[in-house]
Amino acid sequence: MTAGPEIERLIRLLSKLPGLGPRSARRASLSLLQKREQLMRPLIETLRQAADRISACHECDNLDVTDPCAVCSDPGRDSSVICVVETVGDLWALERAGVFRGRYHVLGGVLSALDGVGPENLNVVTLIERANRNKTQEIILALNATVDGQTTAHFLADKLAAADVDITSLARGVPVGGELDYLDDGTLTTAFRARRPV
Amino acid sequence: MTAGPEIERLIRLLSKLPGLGPRSARRASLSLLQKREQLMRPLIETLRQAADRISACHECDNLDVTDPCAVCSDPGRDSSVICVVETVGDLWALERAGVFRGRYHVLGGVLSALDGVGPENLNVVTLIERANRNKTQEIILALNATVDGQTTAHFLADKLAAADVDITSLARGVPVGGELDYLDDGTLTTAFRARRPV
Repeated sequence: MTAGPEIERLIRLLSKLPGLGPRSARRASLSLLQKREQLMRPLIETLRQAADRISACHECDNLDVTDPCAVCSDPGRDSSVICVVETVGDLWALERAGVFRGRYHVLGGVLSALDGVGPENLNVVTLIERANRNKTQEIILALNATVDGQTTAHFLADKLAAADVDITSLARGVPVGGELDYLDDGTLTTAFRARRPV
Repeated sequence: MTAGPEIERLIRLLSKLPGLGPRSARRASLSLLQKREQLMRPLIETLRQAADRISACHECDNLDVTDPCAVCSDPGRDSSVICVVETVGDLWALERAGVFRGRYHVLGGVLSALDGVGPENLNVVTLIERANRNKTQEIILALNATVDGQTTAHFLADKLAAADVDITSLARGVPVGGELDYLDDGTLTTAFRARRPV
């Protein structure tokens, strides 16, 4: 025995969270047990509320306590532009940047032959349906600049070609604060080819 | 808004766990919400059970569902030797190594002028009481080899001098697998001075 079956089970579950290995899950468990009233009980209550109340938006698959979600139901946002992202985490990242005031569409992943993810596992049908609505004018494919992300972007662009919408994707180039010396050849080549008048 | 107040609260609480920053707390929250039945609900139930059932052992301050804890109530363990550790995490580390078959005493920290931790904040009185029991023969000070840990070890050795027990501490030297070239001067000097016949 090391820590008793109850604590071992807690450690095992916590170590399934991304970013926590067995060692940090042990430290986290200990910290929870030692800060029972300040941290552990509030966390239990917050987790319980989140598990019960947060659900996926039927429109965009964002997670929120309301359905449609706060983004889809905000009349101040432009409903003619839909930004397609892989995960809710990417949606949060764009919201933090505060750059986009339209609607989102969470794809739920990317096509991947290796992981056995096909179009039927992603929210593709609902995206095509939304693209064909009269008010939709632009679809921004904000997928990751990975091989799978780009394959998926091409697939989607193909599927959306029949709809009367502009299809755009995020610009590629030197990231803000990036030093040329540290950039990979692919990024440098892309940035060079897509150079713009100053 | 980025993710709604419920999710933000969950992220804030998770980021208070050691080893999780704001970014990994976001990823963990998302992972929990997406694996609701496989991960989130079992974690809530396990946390709830742990919070309700696990308490500190009145004898050694270890955490367990029983009081006295599994170590203190195991008749197969040698009750004449007490190993003093800083935290329950250190106790777990020694149990994983499987090197010790006596009892423990969790100090609950170390003396630290900087953090305002004095002897009254640690389980010192109960340790002296246990040391003065007839059956106790040896007290092993297994504190961290940090400045605070060693200050505390000296303080405890002083306090325990009156009791009729052997006081020992862990050996210092080159760690198993350690390469001399990468060791600090302090460890090398200690290992050199404490050299032993082969």
